[in-house]
Amino acid sequence: MRSDSVPTADEATRPSHLHGEELATWSGLATVLEWLPTLLDAQLKRDAGLTHFEYGVLFALANAPERRLRMSVLAGYANSTLTRLSRAVTRLEGRGYARRSADDEDGRYTVALLTDAGFTAFQAATPGHAALVRQLVLDALTPQQQGQLRTITGRILEAAGPGTPWPATGR
Amino acid sequence: MRSDSVPTADEATRPSHLHGEELATWSGLATVLEWLPTLLDAQLKRDAGLTHFEYGVLFALANAPERRLRMSVLAGYANSTLTRLSRAVTRLEGRGYARRSADDEDGRYTVALLTDAGFTAFQAATPGHAALVRQLVLDALTPQQQGQLRTITGRILEAAGPGTPWPATGR
Repeated sequence: MRSDSVPTADEATRPSHLHGEELATWSGLATVLEWLPTLLDAQLKRDAGLTHFEYGVLFALANAPERRLRMSVLAGYANSTLTRLSRAVTRLEGRGYARRSADDEDGRYTVALLTDAGFTAFQAATPGHAALVRQLVLDALTPQQQGQLRTITGRILEAAGPGTPWPATGR
Repeated sequence: MRSDSVPTADEATRPSHLHGEELATWSGLATVLEWLPTLLDAQLKRDAGLTHFEYGVLFALANAPERRLRMSVLAGYANSTLTRLSRAVTRLEGRGYARRSADDEDGRYTVALLTDAGFTAFQAATPGHAALVRQLVLDALTPQQQGQLRTITGRILEAAGPGTPWPATGR
């Protein structure tokens, strides 16, 4: 976010509605924002009993050192409120997939830990999820378009705040 | 969605997790899917008392002939269940922005209509929303990247189902 909210002369004269190619660009992305999460949620709920958000939490923990992260760091990855994250972690705790405890390094912080059962569940859920991501996104794009999409999402995330995507260290 | 769920030989030998550039491509888009809706919702709620989903309903109705659409068509645009759409339209009715009635052409269908107050609210909400879309997306991209994004989202939407984005007739 820019802290400077005074419009420049150029901005002040721009139309207040989106038109033409600008509107087409935004409509495409806005429709993807509505469609993809619904489809990803449906597959994960049906096959693994997880929302896409909960899967994201398992993914981040599974890829973190010692499979643990501060709740505030986890919330930052997803631009989530701590309340929403806390509800998700409570559901994961209820299934034995995660635990919360005080941070060993600084007891003022709470960390979330992935249990062995949670890691097993993450691994079991991943092939079906990855297959759907391939079907809906990766296989629909050429390698060149995949590279363009990495650049484009990087620029949007720089403008939108986090700068970097969820941890993508892979496994 | 492909109706053919039998994997080809190529698919059967592909790794069941995403790795490397594939993972980086997906992580970038997945993070945008988490971040953008949250930021768009926050601005619209603060300035217009609308969720991004409700704004999308107003947008679609404002751009439809006679400012009316069948509920089933509206739901299709957003890949929304009728239940979710119905709740949103009920909230819009409560504020005097929309009404439901039987479709004149076929009484088995319900149509949603935008009221004059709803059109005024849509117009009042649009400049702030458009400014945020420019800030987070359009101004972050070159014209060439905007063109790439239109192509990429088009291919994803072909793979994901709707084929076309929300109505983008502009105004």
